[in-house]
Amino acid sequence: MALEGEILRRLASVVGKDGLLTAAEDLLCYSYDATPVRHLPEAVVLPRSAAEVASVLSIANDALTPVVPRGSGTNLSGGSVPVAGGIVLATSRMNRILEIDADNLTATAQPGVILAQFHQAVEERGLFYPPDPASLKVATLGGTVAQGAGGPRGLKYGTTKDYVIALEVALAEGSLIRTGAKTVKNVSGYDLTHLLVGSQGTLGVITEITVRLLPLPQAKKTCLAIFDTIDAAAQAVASIIGRRIIPTTLELIDDVTMQCIEGYQKTGLPQDAEAVLLMEVDGSPQDVPRQFEEMVAAARDCGAREVRVAASEEEREALWTARRAAFAAVSRARPSIVIEDATVPRPALPQMVRAIKEAAQRYNLLVGLMAHAGDGNTHPQIMCDASDKEEMARVERFTEEIFRMALSLGGTLTGEHGIGLLKSRFLPWQFGEEGVAVMRRIKKALDPQGILNPGKMFPNASS
Amino acid sequence: MALEGEILRRLASVVGKDGLLTAAEDLLCYSYDATPVRHLPEAVVLPRSAAEVASVLSIANDALTPVVPRGSGTNLSGGSVPVAGGIVLATSRMNRILEIDADNLTATAQPGVILAQFHQAVEERGLFYPPDPASLKVATLGGTVAQGAGGPRGLKYGTTKDYVIALEVALAEGSLIRTGAKTVKNVSGYDLTHLLVGSQGTLGVITEITVRLLPLPQAKKTCLAIFDTIDAAAQAVASIIGRRIIPTTLELIDDVTMQCIEGYQKTGLPQDAEAVLLMEVDGSPQDVPRQFEEMVAAARDCGAREVRVAASEEEREALWTARRAAFAAVSRARPSIVIEDATVPRPALPQMVRAIKEAAQRYNLLVGLMAHAGDGNTHPQIMCDASDKEEMARVERFTEEIFRMALSLGGTLTGEHGIGLLKSRFLPWQFGEEGVAVMRRIKKALDPQGILNPGKMFPNASS
Repeated sequence: MALEGEILRRLASVVGKDGLLTAAEDLLCYSYDATPVRHLPEAVVLPRSAAEVASVLSIANDALTPVVPRGSGTNLSGGSVPVAGGIVLATSRMNRILEIDADNLTATAQPGVILAQFHQAVEERGLFYPPDPASLKVATLGGTVAQGAGGPRGLKYGTTKDYVIALEVALAEGSLIRTGAKTVKNVSGYDLTHLLVGSQGTLGVITEITVRLLPLPQAKKTCLAIFDTIDAAAQAVASIIGRRIIPTTLELIDDVTMQCIEGYQKTGLPQDAEAVLLMEVDGSPQDVPRQFEEMVAAARDCGAREVRVAASEEEREALWTARRAAFAAVSRARPSIVIEDATVPRPALPQMVRAIKEAAQRYNLLVGLMAHAGDGNTHPQIMCDASDKEEMARVERFTEEIFRMALSLGGTLTGEHGIGLLKSRFLPWQFGEEGVAVMRRIKKALDPQGILNPGKMFPNASS
Repeated sequence: MALEGEILRRLASVVGKDGLLTAAEDLLCYSYDATPVRHLPEAVVLPRSAAEVASVLSIANDALTPVVPRGSGTNLSGGSVPVAGGIVLATSRMNRILEIDADNLTATAQPGVILAQFHQAVEERGLFYPPDPASLKVATLGGTVAQGAGGPRGLKYGTTKDYVIALEVALAEGSLIRTGAKTVKNVSGYDLTHLLVGSQGTLGVITEITVRLLPLPQAKKTCLAIFDTIDAAAQAVASIIGRRIIPTTLELIDDVTMQCIEGYQKTGLPQDAEAVLLMEVDGSPQDVPRQFEEMVAAARDCGAREVRVAASEEEREALWTARRAAFAAVSRARPSIVIEDATVPRPALPQMVRAIKEAAQRYNLLVGLMAHAGDGNTHPQIMCDASDKEEMARVERFTEEIFRMALSLGGTLTGEHGIGLLKSRFLPWQFGEEGVAVMRRIKKALDPQGILNPGKMFPNASS
């Protein structure tokens, strides 16, 4: 299906001829994200300003044409795949940091800024923006806001939603609004800012973002604790929190994942341990040693057989290299990879970890388990072959079981990856038909014709 | 106007005869909040459970009768005054803390729990719930969630919205939904939790609240810095933040307020200084001294003529007593009190403070100024006489000017008190007609008949 020539002409008049892509090879580049899902758009637009975004939406809304906003397409929920065709609106040309207000501890940027560049810019000013999804070298700030992205540092610092304080948003019908303010305290009107964060482009297209910042911690200390059993590692997590220490990160990596990593890149991870915890504390130089000692003591009390302490920034980087290599490593083990992120209350982590390992065996699936363990956020990485229907049926039953387990433990379907396409049919499991109906009412109120990222968030979404 | 007997009979069948108040002297007790606004309800219901709340809403929705949820009525925006009559739904009987999950760092409670009692319960477990509005000894947890309340500790710890992670909510049409989960990380579906926080009972009635908790800081240190000029005090605030110190509180109190306080209760506040800063840092015993020294050094560099350091918990309490006495003190100076909370980006605080002082003089009004200065949250306290029309006209022009100034500086109408009734007509100043229209659409989607707290949040709200 192709868009009518008249619509394409109108789009070109807004974004310029160089801002409109319709060649097959171009469309292919915007047909995927970090899931196995693929679907071609009919056109790609590359607007340069909020006004252009709004005009594109107005044209699309008149023509009842879907619009799928896209950053760098790194999301793990199918959120940026244009499953209903239509227009992909890529924010790559809206990539300026507009202001770093060091005195106000805020920064304002366009959505297409790459997250790592944003981190660097604020850190050069002695400031800190904590959200750190693994994709941060590629992902855009706008994408992480639309997804509500998290990351390892979420344990201590929370996720994207804890930092966004104001947005400029283009609405489905082509108007622009501003939400929030350049103040951390703000209860004026409804909190549209938070309604938009994590809404995956289904309620509006984010055209400008203001976040609050923290002072950059002046010290950190990192170690790798090695455990013979994954149960002991999970218990160590509970013990650390029980001592009222909130580390920056408590990353759990299981044996399957470690074997994949070592097969991909030699990082020195133990090959005979069931799990490791990559643990880091940060803060002031006065406070970090105390936190670190408490954390290590808790790990040893829970049976850590070895604790490798990073004595230098190089050694710290080496430990993190192993963790960061995980996605690439598990991705090459089999043709396809499905990563889930069912999240449970902290005390339920040991039970959840056992359930995942047991179910993987029962369904005869190759599953590596990583977890942002300190906040109960598990990442089972299911290595599979999307072309093998029988295997994918097992993958589906496995993930369904994991979701049911997480919900029965008081958890959530997704801690930081989003519902998107892949988990949309499970939404009523968590919120019931009534809860989903409320979300649908809000969707209908803001996007009456259902042009914004159709097929996402809601089960059997016709809009 | 009185409700029909049939409606009263149906309400009594839900909440019991002892849970339905209709006597004039009872209705009077539910006709006010902490603003000068008064309006009698037609009935008061005291439900004991979420199911009873939902049934009350169902009856009211059938009868097109307004329902105004109410905690302890301490809010400062007219939010809980039943200006359209109808039913006041008071949560005083839903006052149980349901769970403190120390391992998960969360707690779950009914809305009618008194905030100070909630603080005490979690602190006994070594945990910490930061939101601390001045009304905390009277205010309910549910009220503070519905209002998105803040407080002095907001500077370091944020406000209520930064802690609520899950809600149970009764909707206008009488169904109950759950939002969020018992996990800090959660991006499943739209963030209804944050949409409800601060919505002042206009979108649903909160029947259960789950918040995240922090480890209780093990040390704190407090001082009072005295400044000859209010400008110097405001500059000290900027200087402290500029040194990348985020104190727990930076409370500014001006000369007018100090004179009221000393006239009410001898607390030793200087009577010849233009302003003081009540400054406190907290954290670990290892880290507090460094923060404290930096903070005090910044204050001295900016011209603090004296810094009184609290050497004991008793001396700390004495310093805070002065701050906490302020509301009572200014309330008795004149028959009425109007407290605003226009909030500006931190660097704009000195300009905002000057503008408030200058406008107060120009309009010949007695205005005490306090501010949660570290986050730009000003509290001009206008001492006036609500029965004096001419004076109230000046109060109105004064507040309008303050709002315009705050918005022109990139701030917000209200940092922590809410729009409610008193600021509803200014909402379009901040968000434009388009922004307000989006909020109205959401209101309509969740409360189609407009029974929930009508007259609040929106200008000329018929619903």
